[in-house]
Amino acid sequence: MKQRRTRGNMKAVVLFSGGLDSTTVLYDALARGYRCHCVIFDYGQRHKKEILCAVRIAKKRACPYQIIRIVLPWNLSSLIGTKNPVPTKNSLLKTDELPSTYVPGRNTLFISFALSYAETIGAGTIFIGANAVDYSGYPDCRPQYYTALNRVLTALGTGVTIKTPLIHLSKAQIIRRGNRLGVPYDLTWSCYQGGEKPCGVCDSCRFRDKGFEEA
Amino acid sequence: MKQRRTRGNMKAVVLFSGGLDSTTVLYDALARGYRCHCVIFDYGQRHKKEILCAVRIAKKRACPYQIIRIVLPWNLSSLIGTKNPVPTKNSLLKTDELPSTYVPGRNTLFISFALSYAETIGAGTIFIGANAVDYSGYPDCRPQYYTALNRVLTALGTGVTIKTPLIHLSKAQIIRRGNRLGVPYDLTWSCYQGGEKPCGVCDSCRFRDKGFEEA
Repeated sequence: MKQRRTRGNMKAVVLFSGGLDSTTVLYDALARGYRCHCVIFDYGQRHKKEILCAVRIAKKRACPYQIIRIVLPWNLSSLIGTKNPVPTKNSLLKTDELPSTYVPGRNTLFISFALSYAETIGAGTIFIGANAVDYSGYPDCRPQYYTALNRVLTALGTGVTIKTPLIHLSKAQIIRRGNRLGVPYDLTWSCYQGGEKPCGVCDSCRFRDKGFEEA
Repeated sequence: MKQRRTRGNMKAVVLFSGGLDSTTVLYDALARGYRCHCVIFDYGQRHKKEILCAVRIAKKRACPYQIIRIVLPWNLSSLIGTKNPVPTKNSLLKTDELPSTYVPGRNTLFISFALSYAETIGAGTIFIGANAVDYSGYPDCRPQYYTALNRVLTALGTGVTIKTPLIHLSKAQIIRRGNRLGVPYDLTWSCYQGGEKPCGVCDSCRFRDKGFEEA
């Protein structure tokens, strides 16, 4: 297998959940001329609603997509399964605690799969909608994590670069950008629960609602 | 979920294939007093023989183990499925080529799963039998890759460190160390094929046989 010359090309892999952030990233990348291939993860989250939303949006934009099933036999996070309740207020400011919705190694896993895909199809860029402002205290949303990951990709000589276009934006700024790009936010799903309508009280709903109010 | 204080503890996750290298790493870590938990990967490799060998050895040493199934719908490497032949002589010295047995992102995927497991059980160390001397030209076996990965783990604040005790050893040196540790090499499996006996001609067999001759 010949190593492909990927650096700087316009083919991209987008980590795509069908939520507010990753949908904005997808629309932003498409607007910049990237040919986007979506990877959608089914990692045993509480509900399949976000996967259905992701597929619908990928199809709407005629983007090829792959659904990857990740089975973590040891996972105990409240986002997986239905045993533990999801938190409904942000108590994440204590520095030695992680939110119960933190899935150990999740973004690292997602990016590893995206890297494998990018190498296989010869994409030069991986886009992820990580966001360090209105986030839930996850260590894998911080800029220094992505800087370090890009050094790994350099060490591998893959020619693939991870880009995090939303990392320094607030939810309101993301929504304003998305509105300019025509992002169909009514098709996106952010709620940690899988009800008919968003619950309005989980961390993810609260950040989303606050963002729309401010935007 | 409280972030665990893992740095420097003696609980470890071992990436374990049941082959010569990772079995030596397991015995080495156990001899140093680590309580080892094995992760064994079923990533659609040509045969299940190495998985059976890994399970047998983990049980022999009374190590807990997890078998992780990774499905890569896009994978084209000759190690996966049975369509492409495995190479039988090492033509990997051209700098712009990767061997056909290279699985894009494989070790990064393996380490991501190991990281998730280590974070979940509170292990401070991940051991991997990567080897930069008698290897097949894989970019994810080079020391600089592991240095960069450890910076990612630092950025995540996990307290987990990746250790590669074999990285600078030749196959013969690995086998000599293993012999001192009582590694049951007759129970290990290195061949890329899954026949009754090792094929003796694939890269992996050739490195193994040469190692035993020299040791």
